[in-house]
Amino acid sequence: MAAAVASQALRHRLAELAVSVGIEVLPGDKVAVAGAPEQLDTIREVVEAAYRAGAHYVEPFLFDHHAKRSRLEHAPQDTLDFVPRSWTAHFEQMIEERWSNVSVYAPPSSELFDGVDPRRLAIDRMPLTRDVLRMIASGRVPWTLVAAPTTAWARDVFGEPDVDRLWTAVGHATRLDTADPAAEWQARLETLARRADALNERRFESLHFSGPGTDLRVGLLGPFLAARWRTDAGRAYAPNLPTEEVFATPDHHRVEGTVRTTKPVFLATGVLVEGLRLRFAGGECVEVEATRNADAVRREMEHDRGARRLGEVALVEASGPINDTGLVFKHTLLDENAASHIAWGNAYPVGIDLPDDPAEREAMGYNESAVHTDVMIGSEEVSVAGLTAAGEGVDVVRDGTWVL
Amino acid sequence: MAAAVASQALRHRLAELAVSVGIEVLPGDKVAVAGAPEQLDTIREVVEAAYRAGAHYVEPFLFDHHAKRSRLEHAPQDTLDFVPRSWTAHFEQMIEERWSNVSVYAPPSSELFDGVDPRRLAIDRMPLTRDVLRMIASGRVPWTLVAAPTTAWARDVFGEPDVDRLWTAVGHATRLDTADPAAEWQARLETLARRADALNERRFESLHFSGPGTDLRVGLLGPFLAARWRTDAGRAYAPNLPTEEVFATPDHHRVEGTVRTTKPVFLATGVLVEGLRLRFAGGECVEVEATRNADAVRREMEHDRGARRLGEVALVEASGPINDTGLVFKHTLLDENAASHIAWGNAYPVGIDLPDDPAEREAMGYNESAVHTDVMIGSEEVSVAGLTAAGEGVDVVRDGTWVL
Repeated sequence: MAAAVASQALRHRLAELAVSVGIEVLPGDKVAVAGAPEQLDTIREVVEAAYRAGAHYVEPFLFDHHAKRSRLEHAPQDTLDFVPRSWTAHFEQMIEERWSNVSVYAPPSSELFDGVDPRRLAIDRMPLTRDVLRMIASGRVPWTLVAAPTTAWARDVFGEPDVDRLWTAVGHATRLDTADPAAEWQARLETLARRADALNERRFESLHFSGPGTDLRVGLLGPFLAARWRTDAGRAYAPNLPTEEVFATPDHHRVEGTVRTTKPVFLATGVLVEGLRLRFAGGECVEVEATRNADAVRREMEHDRGARRLGEVALVEASGPINDTGLVFKHTLLDENAASHIAWGNAYPVGIDLPDDPAEREAMGYNESAVHTDVMIGSEEVSVAGLTAAGEGVDVVRDGTWVL
Repeated sequence: MAAAVASQALRHRLAELAVSVGIEVLPGDKVAVAGAPEQLDTIREVVEAAYRAGAHYVEPFLFDHHAKRSRLEHAPQDTLDFVPRSWTAHFEQMIEERWSNVSVYAPPSSELFDGVDPRRLAIDRMPLTRDVLRMIASGRVPWTLVAAPTTAWARDVFGEPDVDRLWTAVGHATRLDTADPAAEWQARLETLARRADALNERRFESLHFSGPGTDLRVGLLGPFLAARWRTDAGRAYAPNLPTEEVFATPDHHRVEGTVRTTKPVFLATGVLVEGLRLRFAGGECVEVEATRNADAVRREMEHDRGARRLGEVALVEASGPINDTGLVFKHTLLDENAASHIAWGNAYPVGIDLPDDPAEREAMGYNESAVHTDVMIGSEEVSVAGLTAAGEGVDVVRDGTWVL
């Protein structure tokens, strides 16, 4: 009972944080709160918090993975790429009318899609359709992604549905157990911004990751960015809470070498991948091995040309509240902020002056794709150096610790 | 445990019935399944049943009344009539692309909107917006409405959240406890169709309701219809399951007299009205009294001119599986099919040759409004006579029993 009360208090604090620091709701805003029905309690708290902050309209936008499971089991294969017009209309409306978006996310049960043909899984991109990426890329929509426990997720983490224990861990990872989470986060966002500034001053041409099974060079296209972004109209927002990363857009031509993931990965389709090893040559992933579900990764990388090239590289210390918990959350938001990572698929256009012509974007090394999947490659055994134009190497992360 | 198993079996049967008799899913169909998150278990069963019947895409379309409660508490009053474009786009898509629709409905807790200013309640029409009425009126969308228990609804009916007991009652009312519910319903739909035919042969000009507190004449505009409808493309569907009524569209000019409701009424806004008494003169409701929430009815009737005139009149026997249960379900679908009823607000265009010009529709006596609220006026003490053009009275229902 005590734990349940604590979970409810953490849920309330998470909602307040999403609304105050995540999207900084202002009177008159329209807000979508996306998530699964399993997270309705948290979604309702966010709705209430947004209205109390002055929002004019707040819409729960629910996607049910169980309905998706029925679809994958029964619908004809040539219908699986269908996306209803009204789904697209929701995101177009958010872009045109400058809505804000809170995504309340927990991974669906890792068993939910067991037994489904991975080829079918790779065709059905909902709920992470191109519309979502377009909304993010528009630069017009303040958005934030937060993690809220469910029993299915707790079962995947602990082997039992102890959702209160998961709230305690996620609450710690999200700094909700501090006296003033909003103030903590404003301070942390400043620290991360200073790290990005320090990296950008060095004008590195590429990064070199080294560690067990990892020897990877990633060319840089854009500057390093951190946790607080701004819309084209100047509205501040924090896309991820928690966030511990500074990240940049790679030059998709200049990625070479091998890399081993250091945490399990969930694909957008819900498939869990473990023990992944990739080899890149000339910017493309040319070899995929894994101890679990390598095939699902291969299928995803076949989705389009950009799906087998990198769209993000991010640096994270191997210490902090997420690592304090000692858990693998099997949730990208938390696990990626516990470790340096790369993502194949779509790049974020933030901080880059993008030409209108897709061919020019391609030529400059900016990657575009319908997918975006983060995989963790950092740990206390992995170091990262920045390489300057002169070929000089500068330590940035040594054995998981920030040293720049 | 046994009861829970029984409830799950009834839920499964309800889903099968909705898909096979309600909207008669065909391979290639696109289907929306509308309801509240509290009914997710039932909604998922309908999704699964529709896919198994060959649907190409099935979309759960969830509306959360708790989010609406937050809106009504906090949002500025001049924003409460806002309906997002994407909401309207959902229904336009259904009309244009000929989707089918299953609505899984339970009344939200009768206490959910307690304390909310009824004027604010009357402004926010979601989820029953004009878009829904337009979809129904289009004649292009096979649709069905079924009732699925929730704990909140069980609490309102029994004073305790005995959802299994409510499943047993709703299962009986919906003939799910028979050997072959689909066959039962096909036979029942035939009986109701024959009753409508018998009424139409007499060419009544109006109906006369008489009973305690009731002396009401309702002029008829359209023919009597029953439970099975067809789209303009000839697709059969059963808009309500259960359904026990034959109904017609009134001439909104010719409604005179007094009427007393015989069951409690839920407005679309969730407000519970009891002991309602109405007086009509020249087709308009000119007096509203009630033992509970008369004001909410008055506000609703102020919404537009059509809101205080009749849009439906329906005849139902005072016996049958719904009355067998001895319950007041506080759910219009079940209670209206236990008793003859009238509705103020929007008429159904079925069976009437409607002119395109709104002024002509108005002049002919066809009522249009943004609202449609059914109220039960039949009981074992109420009789109904049909009045011919010659002024002759013919008994149709005597003391609640069908006699025509």
